Amino acid sequence: MKYLTNDKLVIVGAAGMIGSNMAQTALMMKLTPNVCLYDPYAPALKGVAEELFHCAFEGANITFTSDISEALKGASYIVNSGGAARKAGMTREDLLKGNAEIAAQFGKDVKLYCPDVKHIVIIFNPADITGLITLIYSGLKPSQVSTLAALDSTRLQSELSKYFKIPASEIDNCRTYGGHGEQMAVFASTTKVQGVPLTQLIGTDKLPMKDWDELKIRVVQGGKNIIELRGRSSFQSPSYISVEMIAAAMGGPSFPWPSGCYVSDSRFNHIMMAMETTLDKTGVHYKEVKGTPEEEKELENSYKHLCKLRDEVIEMGVLPPIDKWNSLNSNII
Amino acid sequence: MKYLTNDKLVIVGAAGMIGSNMAQTALMMKLTPNVCLYDPYAPALKGVAEELFHCAFEGANITFTSDISEALKGASYIVNSGGAARKAGMTREDLLKGNAEIAAQFGKDVKLYCPDVKHIVIIFNPADITGLITLIYSGLKPSQVSTLAALDSTRLQSELSKYFKIPASEIDNCRTYGGHGEQMAVFASTTKVQGVPLTQLIGTDKLPMKDWDELKIRVVQGGKNIIELRGRSSFQSPSYISVEMIAAAMGGPSFPWPSGCYVSDSRFNHIMMAMETTLDKTGVHYKEVKGTPEEEKELENSYKHLCKLRDEVIEMGVLPPIDKWNSLNSNII
Repeated sequence: MKYLTNDKLVIVGAAGMIGSNMAQTALMMKLTPNVCLYDPYAPALKGVAEELFHCAFEGANITFTSDISEALKGASYIVNSGGAARKAGMTREDLLKGNAEIAAQFGKDVKLYCPDVKHIVIIFNPADITGLITLIYSGLKPSQVSTLAALDSTRLQSELSKYFKIPASEIDNCRTYGGHGEQMAVFASTTKVQGVPLTQLIGTDKLPMKDWDELKIRVVQGGKNIIELRGRSSFQSPSYISVEMIAAAMGGPSFPWPSGCYVSDSRFNHIMMAMETTLDKTGVHYKEVKGTPEEEKELENSYKHLCKLRDEVIEMGVLPPIDKWNSLNSNII
Repeated sequence: MKYLTNDKLVIVGAAGMIGSNMAQTALMMKLTPNVCLYDPYAPALKGVAEELFHCAFEGANITFTSDISEALKGASYIVNSGGAARKAGMTREDLLKGNAEIAAQFGKDVKLYCPDVKHIVIIFNPADITGLITLIYSGLKPSQVSTLAALDSTRLQSELSKYFKIPASEIDNCRTYGGHGEQMAVFASTTKVQGVPLTQLIGTDKLPMKDWDELKIRVVQGGKNIIELRGRSSFQSPSYISVEMIAAAMGGPSFPWPSGCYVSDSRFNHIMMAMETTLDKTGVHYKEVKGTPEEEKELENSYKHLCKLRDEVIEMGVLPPIDKWNSLNSNII
């Protein structure tokens, strides 16, 4: 029974639907025997641990704790799904503030208890913002924190597969960039359908503009659709994909989809968002994104939307102004 | 991306927590690309399929349908978690009758739509009974139908691991036989703890009789405990273990735990229950179970309990009397 590494992997939010699935997934992928489950909700956490004990994963060393210092001590890798869900009566701002504060505390805990952690994947919403906050407070390098952004791209692939009635494997390089959700930028120009650039199909009999516009809406609303169909938020796909991300950071197969990462260059500044990325043992790194003028415009809009969210969090006092970030994290210039 | 086989695997009850986890597990284990999800509840089923599409499993060919004939057509392997859950106001007998009828219809559907199926794993409760009914109506050979029984054994291993504070891997050959649940027979004489027979530890300072009795209760109530802790029935462990079973039947790693199987010999007759089994490409086969006189007595009691349940189902008219079974399934003598 070979594991990829013996390094400690911590699942934050392990009592939840996503976290518990991530733990099972990581053990099934044989990433490491040393999986530590953390959640503040102790009884449900214990229930998840029991379930995993009963799976009898060969050679596994599963631990669980509601003490964050114990959880993070010696951690090499972390996947964090430990945000709060939106509850009745909460505004969008309430949710943003709540999860932003959770991310800030988590970043501080990382700095205190596991400054030598190798990579962290953040998946609780809005992940672009919670990932950014984690990065700043943790003191880590930008290459060490990534966020789950790939689901929009896999949803684009899935919708194209259904539309053309062909296997998903015949549709290459689906890409959405920028923010996650309504404000994402869907790039058609990167995609090939059975070898043919998608941009050559859009607006023809094969994919009339109206159908393409509707398809893009289905991509954007992919998560909402799951809630309507299943009566619960998606948890299997965010779990599986984010464990694929941490597997890549551990030295497993390289991650083939875009990740959210810290971006700061002449065009996009002091932001975390989905870019064309590589994610491997060296961490997450991005390349410049190139699309049609219309796609570039969409990406600009997505970036502006994220800047607005970031600035809200600064106004709330959860993040300091940008020019003070460097004093919290010297890796942020 | 190598799969173990290209044979069609059908997940019955795929919209549920167990079924949806089984589908993800089977795809992650790369058992076959051809996974068909069946559930009568179409919207939730579609939601599960969407989640799996969004995982973008390489090379996967995931289909879904609420038409049982379409689902079973060409099926080589089936895992069935498609029973009803106990609802408020239902008696134990209501639940038994309901799931027995579901199993009878499923067996008939197998005979009609996929008589060439290779192996079926049944996991909906009471699995010993629903598995037996499936076998009789399907016309399959006894080696082709197995039931999930291993969780009691993995729970015994887990409880001993916690009690002795040693890794589960240092506890070998934990075994419970007979029925599942309250009436199981926990065998201590098969187990070794760090090489020492468990029977040599019971009643000593290392494991006083009172502690052993309490530990056995925790094993029996392992499932109930999950409900209390987690607020829902266990789903990750039954899912993972049953997919391990079907993997073994497909020619994957041999299954290391007891399975429920059809038993008919001079001692136990016309019953399905957990025995010492092998489960591999040739199907499920059992060996005689040997224990201490006390353990043998417990197993007898467990068998008698199952006979009582079986006879209830015969009285309900869901199964014909035993001497008529052969006319439904010529493999049952």
